[in-house]
Amino acid sequence: MTNDHLGLFAGFLTSVAVLPQVVRTWRRKHAQDISIWQPLILITGMALWLAYGVLINDLPLIVANTFSIACYLLLLLLKIVYDRRERVGTTR
Amino acid sequence: MTNDHLGLFAGFLTSVAVLPQVVRTWRRKHAQDISIWQPLILITGMALWLAYGVLINDLPLIVANTFSIACYLLLLLLKIVYDRRERVGTTR
Repeated sequence: MTNDHLGLFAGFLTSVAVLPQVVRTWRRKHAQDISIWQPLILITGMALWLAYGVLINDLPLIVANTFSIACYLLLLLLKIVYDRRERVGTTR
Repeated sequence: MTNDHLGLFAGFLTSVAVLPQVVRTWRRKHAQDISIWQPLILITGMALWLAYGVLINDLPLIVANTFSIACYLLLLLLKIVYDRRERVGTTR
């Protein structure tokens, strides 16, 4: 295995790692234990990685960060929806 | 701002993003909403990033991944401890 393959495999793993979290949140319809700051900071950071990737014209950086941003935006949306639904439920 | 600064700032943000999650889990003593697979896959992926960083002798990769691995190991430990505590609590 060359260094490049190692880096690509590492990038693949760190990119797909969010998927089980999205699935779990979707199934439980509950996200109170999840900090809203993690997706917010990550999305900001990955948007900068994406900008960096565009500037240095690096396709793997562009692809990986676009994919991860989409996943974390979905997680953020699920968290906001489920937290709000829960708040409405408790005040009734 | 040069490209390097942009990359370094992006890396800083994506590295520290896990901290609010560790703090939230520590405070709530509850982690059922968190998927155990996200930290497990991330730690594996970042260990490979670390190996890649050592192979190509890249200090930022080594520093950022060592820091993040430590944070995610702590989060994983908290999740295991709190989930187990909760299971023991329900079966009593």
